[in-house]
Amino acid sequence: PTSLDLAVVGGDGIGPEVVAEGLRVLRAVTEADGVEVRTTDYDLGAQRWHATGETLTDADLDALRGHDAILLGAIGDPSVPSGVLERGVLLPLRFALDHCVNLRPSTLFPGAQSPLDLARVAPDGFDFVVVREGTEGPYVGNGGALRVGTPHEIATEVSVNTAFGVERVVRDAFARAQARPRKKLTLVHKHNVLVHAGHLWRRTVEAVAPEFPEVSVDYLHVDAATIFLTVDPARFDVIVTDNLFGDILTDLAAAVSGGIGLAASGNIDPSRTNPSMFEPVHGSAPDIAGQGKADPTAAILSVALLLRHVGLVPAAERVEAAVLADLTERGSAQRSTPRSTQEVGEAIAARL
Amino acid sequence: PTSLDLAVVGGDGIGPEVVAEGLRVLRAVTEADGVEVRTTDYDLGAQRWHATGETLTDADLDALRGHDAILLGAIGDPSVPSGVLERGVLLPLRFALDHCVNLRPSTLFPGAQSPLDLARVAPDGFDFVVVREGTEGPYVGNGGALRVGTPHEIATEVSVNTAFGVERVVRDAFARAQARPRKKLTLVHKHNVLVHAGHLWRRTVEAVAPEFPEVSVDYLHVDAATIFLTVDPARFDVIVTDNLFGDILTDLAAAVSGGIGLAASGNIDPSRTNPSMFEPVHGSAPDIAGQGKADPTAAILSVALLLRHVGLVPAAERVEAAVLADLTERGSAQRSTPRSTQEVGEAIAARL
Ligand SMILES: CC(C)[C@H](C(=O)O)[C@@H](O)C(=O)O
Ligand SMILES: CC(C)[C@H](C(=O)O)[C@@H](O)C(=O)O
Repeated sequence: PTSLDLAVVGGDGIGPEVVAEGLRVLRAVTEADGVEVRTTDYDLGAQRWHATGETLTDADLDALRGHDAILLGAIGDPSVPSGVLERGVLLPLRFALDHCVNLRPSTLFPGAQSPLDLARVAPDGFDFVVVREGTEGPYVGNGGALRVGTPHEIATEVSVNTAFGVERVVRDAFARAQARPRKKLTLVHKHNVLVHAGHLWRRTVEAVAPEFPEVSVDYLHVDAATIFLTVDPARFDVIVTDNLFGDILTDLAAAVSGGIGLAASGNIDPSRTNPSMFEPVHGSAPDIAGQGKADPTAAILSVALLLRHVGLVPAAERVEAAVLADLTERGSAQRSTPRSTQEVGEAIAARL
Repeated sequence: PTSLDLAVVGGDGIGPEVVAEGLRVLRAVTEADGVEVRTTDYDLGAQRWHATGETLTDADLDALRGHDAILLGAIGDPSVPSGVLERGVLLPLRFALDHCVNLRPSTLFPGAQSPLDLARVAPDGFDFVVVREGTEGPYVGNGGALRVGTPHEIATEVSVNTAFGVERVVRDAFARAQARPRKKLTLVHKHNVLVHAGHLWRRTVEAVAPEFPEVSVDYLHVDAATIFLTVDPARFDVIVTDNLFGDILTDLAAAVSGGIGLAASGNIDPSRTNPSMFEPVHGSAPDIAGQGKADPTAAILSVALLLRHVGLVPAAERVEAAVLADLTERGSAQRSTPRSTQEVGEAIAARL
């Protein structure tokens, strides 16, 4: 592409700050390639909700659909009741735009502050990606409650899983595994307890596997997967899992790979009918908002995922290389002089 | 009590081996106190299912109900289809005997092989306990599937949560927090997405809190909890959470505290209407079954939980002290001469 038409949702807390640095890097790398970038800001999140009571309107969605991709900072603020923005903005975006592939890479970068004893559990580092289903599972909002606030209250949450929904994400995960050197796919579920959903996932993986004969497949229960993420993260290449398990595993994966400050993600519609959305895994961190303290690296790595998705692969690789170089220098530098959000963005942009 | 009438379920794989050492230690410690121990073996698990097609019968349950407590090894074998023994034996035991409190302590023992860089993330060790709800949540088996095996398959799993079920486990967790020096309770859920169940949990904690004014309460989303379990496990004292989140968090907790080989658990009916059941968190490990390689320490620590539950607190403390002494010696000993299952049991029993 020679132009890129982006929707930008800074959102709440540190969202706008890290997105600004993501855009700085995006402009730097695309300028060199002569790609024209247009951006349109969308006001979504706590501020708008407080001012208007609106979360995500049909008009917002219609407008968002017209862009090539969406860059999102973070949505969420303690002043808004829990669930309102998650179930009013973040999740409706993923669901309405059919972001069935929630892609979350986990790489051990140089100088990463992993809580693991790396020399012992991962002497050669690790590099895996979680393909989290993004439009089904317990996230569908099909729960309810009866007799709320009484001793007879009953509250349910329904996990909905369909052959259609599982197959498309499983096929995407196989394709990603196929494209990687190790070609290994691990299904994570809990099919010994959640037998209906679990067996659907298992049968789907078995049914798609023959299309990818080079990919080796294994299975872990979600509880066992958390053990392996700490004692042997290098065993993983591509993990495919449901929406809730993926939520849990990717935060753990971010932690062991050196923190949520480096974790990027893409909410992808593989059919390309709708724009895909790229966002750091971290939240809005209201405690440090507006102070220039947030690390924009996850947002910048999310820009790299965005560039790759829209077909600007060399630009994506250059951004990743610049981040790697910055992290390498950071790792060997004095920690006593932490850089501001903007300084990190400028340092990475300067390498492009 | 001056006598103890135990049901013993060795089960599958390494189950019978580790239970034998648990009983060795139990006999050694109760003998000194003049407590008479009677045991009755129950044949549950893969072997019986293969021979008779039976899992857990009403007659089994009636007989089990007559005992003071149950000691269980492990249930599960790859020769049995996934879900059959879990949903036919293990979970029906927990559900029928109203084991609403699934108690799982996590202590960093000396010499523990934690994957964490302990000097950095937990220089003073850690010691917390997870109170996992055991009779509700997504474990209730209220799922189903339509059009199985077709492209139109839909599979659901329903998490059921009741005020009755949540309140009893929350109250138990508060009481445990109250009895510990730090008096801290952390609720773990995902109430920003699972709003109905999550808000029931949240409101219940808020409603019970005034009864325990000394206990300080906080909340974490389950994804964030996995981060803290790796970057700052010492922040936890008592965690209370639902059945599925508890399953996931306790395996992770076992990993960071040095492995599932040391993790004990109790399935407790706090009303004492039914016998409670004590079992190591690890599974049947069929790959090493019958070789005397399994570490019986988790089974022995489960015996300590059992003793404490039936009111033999000094005996429980002596078992825990013996395990601690053994682990301390183990930690400083050569790893080149691993002891057999029986040798570990004998070494711990010899200290009593
Ligand atoms: C904020 C929340 C709704 C969201 C999720 O659970 O998916 C977040 O934890 C994430 O992982 O992107
Ligand atoms: C075997 C399985 C049904 C069980 C569970 O999920 O509860 C196990 O993982 C556990 O933690 O005791």
